[in-house]
Amino acid sequence: MGLAKKVIEGDIRAAARLIRNIDDEAPDAIEELKKIYPKTGNAHIIGITGSPGVGKSTLVDKLIKGFRADFKTVGVVALDPTSPFTGGAILGDRIRMQDHSLDKGVFIRSLATRGCLGGLSYSTNGVIKVMDAMGKDIIIVETVGVGQSEVEIVNSCHTSIVVLAPGLGDDVQMIKAGILEIGDIFVINKSDKDGAEKVENDLRVMLDMNSKSEDEWKPPIYKTVATMDKGVKNLIEGIYEHKKWLVSSKEMEAQIKENLKLEFLKILQTKLMAAIMKKVSEKGLIEKIVDDLYNKSKDPYSMAEEVIKKF
Amino acid sequence: MGLAKKVIEGDIRAAARLIRNIDDEAPDAIEELKKIYPKTGNAHIIGITGSPGVGKSTLVDKLIKGFRADFKTVGVVALDPTSPFTGGAILGDRIRMQDHSLDKGVFIRSLATRGCLGGLSYSTNGVIKVMDAMGKDIIIVETVGVGQSEVEIVNSCHTSIVVLAPGLGDDVQMIKAGILEIGDIFVINKSDKDGAEKVENDLRVMLDMNSKSEDEWKPPIYKTVATMDKGVKNLIEGIYEHKKWLVSSKEMEAQIKENLKLEFLKILQTKLMAAIMKKVSEKGLIEKIVDDLYNKSKDPYSMAEEVIKKF
Repeated sequence: MGLAKKVIEGDIRAAARLIRNIDDEAPDAIEELKKIYPKTGNAHIIGITGSPGVGKSTLVDKLIKGFRADFKTVGVVALDPTSPFTGGAILGDRIRMQDHSLDKGVFIRSLATRGCLGGLSYSTNGVIKVMDAMGKDIIIVETVGVGQSEVEIVNSCHTSIVVLAPGLGDDVQMIKAGILEIGDIFVINKSDKDGAEKVENDLRVMLDMNSKSEDEWKPPIYKTVATMDKGVKNLIEGIYEHKKWLVSSKEMEAQIKENLKLEFLKILQTKLMAAIMKKVSEKGLIEKIVDDLYNKSKDPYSMAEEVIKKF
Repeated sequence: MGLAKKVIEGDIRAAARLIRNIDDEAPDAIEELKKIYPKTGNAHIIGITGSPGVGKSTLVDKLIKGFRADFKTVGVVALDPTSPFTGGAILGDRIRMQDHSLDKGVFIRSLATRGCLGGLSYSTNGVIKVMDAMGKDIIIVETVGVGQSEVEIVNSCHTSIVVLAPGLGDDVQMIKAGILEIGDIFVINKSDKDGAEKVENDLRVMLDMNSKSEDEWKPPIYKTVATMDKGVKNLIEGIYEHKKWLVSSKEMEAQIKENLKLEFLKILQTKLMAAIMKKVSEKGLIEKIVDDLYNKSKDPYSMAEEVIKKF
């Protein structure tokens, strides 16, 4: 039986293998993804982002438990901070796997994308599809920090949660200004610590400045102490609220279409680059180009135009 | 007189305008970049990365002062954390500009790249070129956090500095594992604070595990208290040392060539995507594709293959 069919039937080992193939950028992974595509689109995809140190991992752990208590199956895609560099095994993943290893309703995978061509978002989209096709009700995408890749990953999610915490220095304030636009829900974790109130006030001021019209979603702020499982139940209710709003406001359809568009363009870009890479790697073409650039007899912009014209 | 010529003569207003055009992805910026390209390649490009809260901005400030004391001219490209989201004006930039506004040997610019096509690294490379052509001896690229875009930006630098600080939570430890490979020099800032020793020990253990052969560069660790200008002079000496090693080991040439290759591919990718975007935007093609994907009558992978075949 094909890998795709097994995945759709919820086979964990098949799903794990397909995810590994996606992460390894194995060419036949695409063929399997094509086959599972019609079975996707049922999961509620939740993005969780925030600086290192805000307690995202613990919060995700408690969210898993909360969703399970509501009889929902959960998939987690953890984008490991070490991944772009080491491309190696992931500590946090292994540790957290143990916690839920006896629960067949939970499926956790870390992505260690080398990201040669399409980057993190390309693989992430594939892995989300696998978990979606497996029938997971909730898929949590846990990412790190604020950056280009986070924006792209937000594009794969229905509900984006931004986690803040007190005591992380002034730079955090600057980041906040940048995350206002991506957060559907804000969480102040470690809310029992000194400075939590200040973080909340600052955030509220910024959200108020970023005022919304009547029919737009107004991002709520939840306070949690994930280590003690405090406030997580409320947060989960908030997540359900956002989903309800997405559906009733027809925002869900618009968002899904926008996400599909971006994903399609990303796939197109990745495939094109693979084709181009193959071309320029032939007959030492790229080495010759680099030599010309190094000697400054050509500039990279004109050179790129030349290469494109050739094809 | 053309913008490029003025930039090469060191005209600050011309440089500022060209940078704005690059950031805005104005098409004629490329033509100017072509013209300045032969005048680039003289600056020592230094990347500074680290999580929010480690005190990068202050450290960069003190580095500027240190390099100026050595009679070197300095350019700074600050990649603002808010940029991918807001695409707006940058606070930190304005504040820091004032500090050095009377010094013509310092040129600071923040990048607020919307990053539609080529992303942050594409614009950053352009801005580095402008400062290089202006004749800046040192160009500092200040970036935030650890992620896909940081890896790409490291590819534009000769010397990569990773800044750590005590008191930023356990997640930092995980990040460290990922940054070992990109750091030519490590800095523990706020080294007068509790926990600095632990950060240093942990880092040293990890660097030792990541052992290097005889002729490879061994990343040193510097301790600083940037707010009090402590340890910065030593760090600057370390930066000069690394440059010396790069040149004497012939690593500089290899690195520049590798960077040129990656930059060229990035430009190629950006140009290709722009061409493709133009094509699929014609006659509502992309809307039709998205509808097919939404209805699941097509999958995005097959669709991308179809589009590529058509061209």
